[in-house]
Amino acid sequence: MARIRPTSQPRLSGERFSVLYRIRGGSEAEARARASDICVEQTVEFPLDLVPAGAIRDEILGRVESFEAAGEGAWRARISFAVEVAGGELTQLLNVIFGNISLKPGLRVERLDLDDALCAQFRGPRFGREGLRRHLGIPSRPIVCSALKPMGLSADDLAEIAYRAALGGMDLIKDDHGLADQTFSSFQARVTRCAEAVRRANRETGGGCAYLPNVTAGPEAVVERARFAKSAGCGGLVVTPGLAGLDAMRRLADDEMLGLPVFSHPAFLGTFVTGPDQGISHFALFGQIARLAGADASIFPSFGGRFAFSREECRSIVAGTLTPMGSLAPIFPAPGGGMSLSRLPELAETYGKDVILLVGGDLFRRGPDLTENCRAFRRLAEQL
Amino acid sequence: MARIRPTSQPRLSGERFSVLYRIRGGSEAEARARASDICVEQTVEFPLDLVPAGAIRDEILGRVESFEAAGEGAWRARISFAVEVAGGELTQLLNVIFGNISLKPGLRVERLDLDDALCAQFRGPRFGREGLRRHLGIPSRPIVCSALKPMGLSADDLAEIAYRAALGGMDLIKDDHGLADQTFSSFQARVTRCAEAVRRANRETGGGCAYLPNVTAGPEAVVERARFAKSAGCGGLVVTPGLAGLDAMRRLADDEMLGLPVFSHPAFLGTFVTGPDQGISHFALFGQIARLAGADASIFPSFGGRFAFSREECRSIVAGTLTPMGSLAPIFPAPGGGMSLSRLPELAETYGKDVILLVGGDLFRRGPDLTENCRAFRRLAEQL
Repeated sequence: MARIRPTSQPRLSGERFSVLYRIRGGSEAEARARASDICVEQTVEFPLDLVPAGAIRDEILGRVESFEAAGEGAWRARISFAVEVAGGELTQLLNVIFGNISLKPGLRVERLDLDDALCAQFRGPRFGREGLRRHLGIPSRPIVCSALKPMGLSADDLAEIAYRAALGGMDLIKDDHGLADQTFSSFQARVTRCAEAVRRANRETGGGCAYLPNVTAGPEAVVERARFAKSAGCGGLVVTPGLAGLDAMRRLADDEMLGLPVFSHPAFLGTFVTGPDQGISHFALFGQIARLAGADASIFPSFGGRFAFSREECRSIVAGTLTPMGSLAPIFPAPGGGMSLSRLPELAETYGKDVILLVGGDLFRRGPDLTENCRAFRRLAEQL
Repeated sequence: MARIRPTSQPRLSGERFSVLYRIRGGSEAEARARASDICVEQTVEFPLDLVPAGAIRDEILGRVESFEAAGEGAWRARISFAVEVAGGELTQLLNVIFGNISLKPGLRVERLDLDDALCAQFRGPRFGREGLRRHLGIPSRPIVCSALKPMGLSADDLAEIAYRAALGGMDLIKDDHGLADQTFSSFQARVTRCAEAVRRANRETGGGCAYLPNVTAGPEAVVERARFAKSAGCGGLVVTPGLAGLDAMRRLADDEMLGLPVFSHPAFLGTFVTGPDQGISHFALFGQIARLAGADASIFPSFGGRFAFSREECRSIVAGTLTPMGSLAPIFPAPGGGMSLSRLPELAETYGKDVILLVGGDLFRRGPDLTENCRAFRRLAEQL
């Protein structure tokens, strides 16, 4: 064997963060072995007997902190990692949490327990719940949001919809996440016209509706689009981190020059939550990780709409937006995905008032006048 | 109902691309309804009866091109989309392919059939199989690659390993994907020392070993690290698109000033391929999509190692690296993940000679001298 003999040892603070994993399948002994395997796979990725003695073996290597049964054929293991292993970067932190083991079946991230020292390396949400309420001037009621669609409309036609919705008292109007930079409605034309349309409506109503364009794009374009949105007077940004990268969202949230609220869209991330035996829990992904990556609001498909999340899963997302995480502020849950006005009381029962309610297509259905339909939505939200 | 009356119609070329989806669960009628739902969800995301007549309804909306049974309780639907819907951007193309429907259970992307017009919007791999062979001066044999690890070693100690492996005739030496920019081995120190160590070995052997640092990071850092790697004389880059974003990888591959081969690492993407009933097929994700996103080689965990991919799944990845995709070059499959020298003949049977063989920890196990162990690996590969 070619033994590695380090000429120096890594210096570590001793501070560790931990991840709670669910391990499914096999016997208890096998599950314990798989917990030990996570410790290796997510750090040194090296045959255990060849890992050099000293700080690498004692501290860099993950450590099983607890192990317990979690129902028939399933176990929960809490595994801790040295804070330094994450290198102060979101990409590497996510890599330690779930990089290689995403490729192994039967392992699921249940929750993160990030040390304060680690949380302090991330700004997280710039606004959070309180900041966003202050920013929008809405002290306590549910916040109402509609979506610009359908794809294929021109920038002018989308702006007309934005105008009518803003007149109707929407707090937020977001781009549908499929509006990118298509020939039939370029990003710049759409954002310019829609921002202008919403300003015009605000002048007429005295309201403060904010238009949130979708800036999802590649690593440079996402920053350029966010800057353009800022210069056009937009009140926030929609980003799909599954497409742009979670760290791109963090980048936008951290940008002092932008200083805009960030709304995280769940597209392309759904597979992570499709099974109890793999991926990442709703709580961790749409709650904790969205927060860590700088979202001020986490959009997700609510129970009872076009999607399949259960009420319990939606509740767990809300819990993840709130759970203590060092200095990171709580953020807004933003349930949507086929919501109708008639279901608002039921939604309020689950989500309470600290929520951003997204209604899209249904605002076109209630009556012939979009502005009136939006007024009805706003009134209903005020009465919840 | 508030009907949308567009003042203009989107102009479309009529060119379409298509995606083959697997639909699992329910009756045939339900599966047909779910295929129609994909057409709506991935484009207009609007109640179908409210979608305006004209080009939006006729062309922007997805279209079910074929529908057939695919075994007990499963169906396959080919759905086409207007090329313009993808907006000429990888992020939006991926959004159309699998954005929102990733959140719906029982839907899986099986393969992409991208129109030549759409493929022409992406450069894809800069090198591809032929280009990489030319770049490395290896006309036909399997290419051998080892990995720098374990995490926790200093830059100097990693460089010593790189030196000894390069002396042993490795064609490629890649950073382990967990080496980021940690305090115990900063990115710049590591890359500088390892690139220098490999150059020194090349001078001694007359060989052309290339060192491939891991540049995975956030949207700006990934570009900065790639530039630093180029200036340090590195022969290629390792990126983890699951962490940095697929479009960040595309960005690096497209960069004329970099002009370096790109090796795609599968970490954090594993959940997409954990089940036959959801996510994205191995063929499409690690073959077609990696290519579309500019990878010259797609690293994946081979059957029979530490991970759980089957031989058939690995074969399907190879097929995805090769399948015709407009002007996009075929790329190298790079199986790894717990491979040992004793398994090389078996690997050769499955992968043939057009392969990059990754061996990590096992190179430390064969005998006391890493350089000799690497020579054995190289000799074995030459005899395959």
